[in-house]
Amino acid sequence: MTDTRKPVFLVIGAGAGIGGNAAKRFAAGGYHAVLARRSDEEGLARLVGEIEDAGGSASGILLNASEDGTIEELVERIERDIGPIECALYNLGAQIGNRTLHDTPHRTFELGWRLGCYGVFRLAHAMFPAMVERAKTGRHGTLLVTSATSAVRGNAGQHSHAAAMGGRRMLCQTLNAEFGPQGIHVAHIVVDGSVDAPDTLGKLLGDKYEAYKASKGEDGVIDPANIAETYWHLAQQPRNCWTHEVDIRPWTDVAWWNDNPNPTINSTAANPGFAGPGNTSE
Amino acid sequence: MTDTRKPVFLVIGAGAGIGGNAAKRFAAGGYHAVLARRSDEEGLARLVGEIEDAGGSASGILLNASEDGTIEELVERIERDIGPIECALYNLGAQIGNRTLHDTPHRTFELGWRLGCYGVFRLAHAMFPAMVERAKTGRHGTLLVTSATSAVRGNAGQHSHAAAMGGRRMLCQTLNAEFGPQGIHVAHIVVDGSVDAPDTLGKLLGDKYEAYKASKGEDGVIDPANIAETYWHLAQQPRNCWTHEVDIRPWTDVAWWNDNPNPTINSTAANPGFAGPGNTSE
Amino acid sequence: MTDTRKPVFLVIGAGAGIGGNAAKRFAAGGYHAVLARRSDEEGLARLVGEIEDAGGSASGILLNASEDGTIEELVERIERDIGPIECALYNLGAQIGNRTLHDTPHRTFELGWRLGCYGVFRLAHAMFPAMVERAKTGRHGTLLVTSATSAVRGNAGQHSHAAAMGGRRMLCQTLNAEFGPQGIHVAHIVVDGSVDAPDTLGKLLGDKYEAYKASKGEDGVIDPANIAETYWHLAQQPRNCWTHEVDIRPWTDVAWWNDNPNPTINSTAANPGFAGPGNTSE
Amino acid sequence: MTDTRKPVFLVIGAGAGIGGNAAKRFAAGGYHAVLARRSDEEGLARLVGEIEDAGGSASGILLNASEDGTIEELVERIERDIGPIECALYNLGAQIGNRTLHDTPHRTFELGWRLGCYGVFRLAHAMFPAMVERAKTGRHGTLLVTSATSAVRGNAGQHSHAAAMGGRRMLCQTLNAEFGPQGIHVAHIVVDGSVDAPDTLGKLLGDKYEAYKASKGEDGVIDPANIAETYWHLAQQPRNCWTHEVDIRPWTDVAWWNDNPNPTINSTAANPGFAGPGNTSE
Repeated sequence: MTDTRKPVFLVIGAGAGIGGNAAKRFAAGGYHAVLARRSDEEGLARLVGEIEDAGGSASGILLNASEDGTIEELVERIERDIGPIECALYNLGAQIGNRTLHDTPHRTFELGWRLGCYGVFRLAHAMFPAMVERAKTGRHGTLLVTSATSAVRGNAGQHSHAAAMGGRRMLCQTLNAEFGPQGIHVAHIVVDGSVDAPDTLGKLLGDKYEAYKASKGEDGVIDPANIAETYWHLAQQPRNCWTHEVDIRPWTDVAWWNDNPNPTINSTAANPGFAGPGNTSE
Repeated sequence: MTDTRKPVFLVIGAGAGIGGNAAKRFAAGGYHAVLARRSDEEGLARLVGEIEDAGGSASGILLNASEDGTIEELVERIERDIGPIECALYNLGAQIGNRTLHDTPHRTFELGWRLGCYGVFRLAHAMFPAMVERAKTGRHGTLLVTSATSAVRGNAGQHSHAAAMGGRRMLCQTLNAEFGPQGIHVAHIVVDGSVDAPDTLGKLLGDKYEAYKASKGEDGVIDPANIAETYWHLAQQPRNCWTHEVDIRPWTDVAWWNDNPNPTINSTAANPGFAGPGNTSE
Repeated sequence: MTDTRKPVFLVIGAGAGIGGNAAKRFAAGGYHAVLARRSDEEGLARLVGEIEDAGGSASGILLNASEDGTIEELVERIERDIGPIECALYNLGAQIGNRTLHDTPHRTFELGWRLGCYGVFRLAHAMFPAMVERAKTGRHGTLLVTSATSAVRGNAGQHSHAAAMGGRRMLCQTLNAEFGPQGIHVAHIVVDGSVDAPDTLGKLLGDKYEAYKASKGEDGVIDPANIAETYWHLAQQPRNCWTHEVDIRPWTDVAWWNDNPNPTINSTAANPGFAGPGNTSE
Repeated sequence: MTDTRKPVFLVIGAGAGIGGNAAKRFAAGGYHAVLARRSDEEGLARLVGEIEDAGGSASGILLNASEDGTIEELVERIERDIGPIECALYNLGAQIGNRTLHDTPHRTFELGWRLGCYGVFRLAHAMFPAMVERAKTGRHGTLLVTSATSAVRGNAGQHSHAAAMGGRRMLCQTLNAEFGPQGIHVAHIVVDGSVDAPDTLGKLLGDKYEAYKASKGEDGVIDPANIAETYWHLAQQPRNCWTHEVDIRPWTDVAWWNDNPNPTINSTAANPGFAGPGNTSE
């Protein structure tokens, strides 16, 4: 018996930034969006309302994802009461700003791992068995994981975040290796720039948010609606053409692997402009 | 005075695989496609015809890209006679199959570099000045570069190809670092699987092509039309949300960094299944 | 007042493989070795005895590193009662063999993180303050971290191990970024091959251990005494010439990024021998 | 009949920096050092003299390595007249300082490839056949390749250098994959910091050399004698414990993947201190 209900797009971490925008995009594309977040019932209701006003369907739920059993119970409930989860977005992070090792308490480090890494494991554990079954009938599932620069390199001050994100990235690779051939598309998205997200960056910077955005220049901060468009593209890739990893940043930012954003790159005096000159032709 | 001509999508390496399909996709999206390839005038005319039959506009040209001046002259001619190149796809490779070092002649190695790396440099040199000027008026340009697994790791037998592709990847990063902030989007696409391309893989394998495809299973070979769709997405990303690198492979293939495609992963006998066990908890 | 006691080399995870051999090497070089491991009091005493018989000095301690407070208390005790920890080796892993996601319990995944990642954080937290102080007087400290292929790529079956090791690697980078300029050398060693370690690989394989080693051919398994020599080299590098990451494998193994160990690399039939042929010169 | 002559250590690119110091180290270790460089006969004679004064043996030769046949002829001559090349160091680079694409002529880009990438291919082609034969009798050979940060990431201004070094790195991987199992150890060393090299960095900076070094602080520039010590270690690794890649930098430099060397890492105002905040826990 075929499941005739609308496919579900589940977002864990559905604030007004990437999560909420992805929910809108997938709802516009025909999914029922389920938005889960920890707090701000009003903000959540507003997002659901906006989706419905645009002709889409959505549900919202408040949920503490770091608590054992919460994600698991949610997945079970959706599959039973709402519809088959065809695509999920794990959008929780663990960014706490730059902290020295001394100022990174053990509990903070552990919570970073719970939100940044363990939650992905728990979601996959709960959600993949049904996805594998459906994939046998040709409906492949997708797990999108929002990630950050800290997943690929550890900067000073990022002990908690980088350890969590580095684990998250390797976990996405193990999930992909086991479940890709079983019909589940796992995509790890390295967001390598600031996102215009009122609920996270906005709250973190407070009063300075607008000044910060202005300092980045025109189009210097990523519009989360654009990230949502890339997520939509990834989820629609046919199974003979899957992307596992993609990076995203504004045109004004240098990539994480670059260190000289300076357009005046021909100087030789103060800035000799290169590393490892010892091995130039001798 | 605004240039009111159609924007041009230029493909260097326009066979019946990725190049031709990308030309079709961009023509369908409103670009005038210019298809350049080294040989097979008939195949070229067929591609142009298919685009025109579908209501698009296109031109074809035979060109030996490894010869000095050819790319440069083509860029100049297009800008003058056809329209502004808003997007270009460098789609030439240098794959020659697996060869030992002994069986890789010096001339072959050099030609690999000419096609795989130097050509990208030449195209950027010729094309970027006009793109930079146009970007100042808000029309950003895009350079898409088809690349291969050899750009990120060197396998045995790939001396020529990996050296060329490794250089190509680093060059794309330097181009991106200099020209991103000037409004040119450079994207490096790692095609990490076999593409259903009659003009390249097909010719290379000859009689064995169909058997090879069958051996890969359903959807085990990448449909180049799907890659074209990802290229289209990349070229349409707004400038606050640019991707520099993306990987692509069929669901049935393990990623290049994986080595155990085996679904029976719980054995411990013949296959202890891990590297570096010396550091397990003691 | 200068601390005139012997410098200490602390090993967390001192079995008969890498840990024990590193202890021997550093003791031979003039350090007092402190060997910590979870169990096997007899094996521990044997290692300490071998070091003393060779004219070195060493202490052994049984310790459950996954338990809160154990590492912290040990560091404090050594600094107070034995000597200044000038070099430490974190040698605990979390390899459990290949397991499907289904066969990876939540508790196992968490324990993997506790041993593989959190322990490094705890050791650094406890040990670095004194090291930073001593570095101001010109005696720089070193943290060596044994790591595994799973730290750089996630294979099928390695959910727990790869998530732990990926976090470990990023953590080593954040520690290095913050503490390098303060005089602490952090080195992350990717052991990308099987180590001849009776206490880990030996126990895991049991009866099949000897057959496994034989199957790898002559010098096909890493002698941990050789790894110890590389550790010694890293710890002796002067501070103007520090290595952060190094890989190690036997000559007979291909590197983790390679997938065709086959010496017969010129075939074109069954094995076309390349990925991404769609972008060859068209 | 066994070759009873001294084993040879060949350096291509033997200036007063890394190349000359490596020659001294290997001569002290019992090799006959052959120092090849393009110019400065006097400087070359001085290096040879210093080695001989220290009780070692060495020869010097002026050679334009970018010219076809030169490396090939040298290898043949050494094997015939001096001794078996057991270890070679390819130490030529192609650093030209930071240049815009516009200021990077086509000839410069090609020369960068000839020196930075093609030369390694030519050396391996000429030298490996004899090394493979000797390895069958248990005497493994080693190829050390000095490389630079540009081999792993392309910064603005590094078009020529990064394309050459990126190709060089991938080539080292293909050589390692084919020849490791045949008994040749290929090691790629990423020098990620300024080297105190009078013949290269010194000449490039001229008058400003001493001021530059002073600006880097105590031990802020790599002493090439220390790099030579790491090269010696790599060349002595037994074949069950080979390193393919290692990075080197001074303690005062952040690694290439880091971008915030700032020790004051707790600020949140001007420097929010992180990328990708959109995915923090919502």
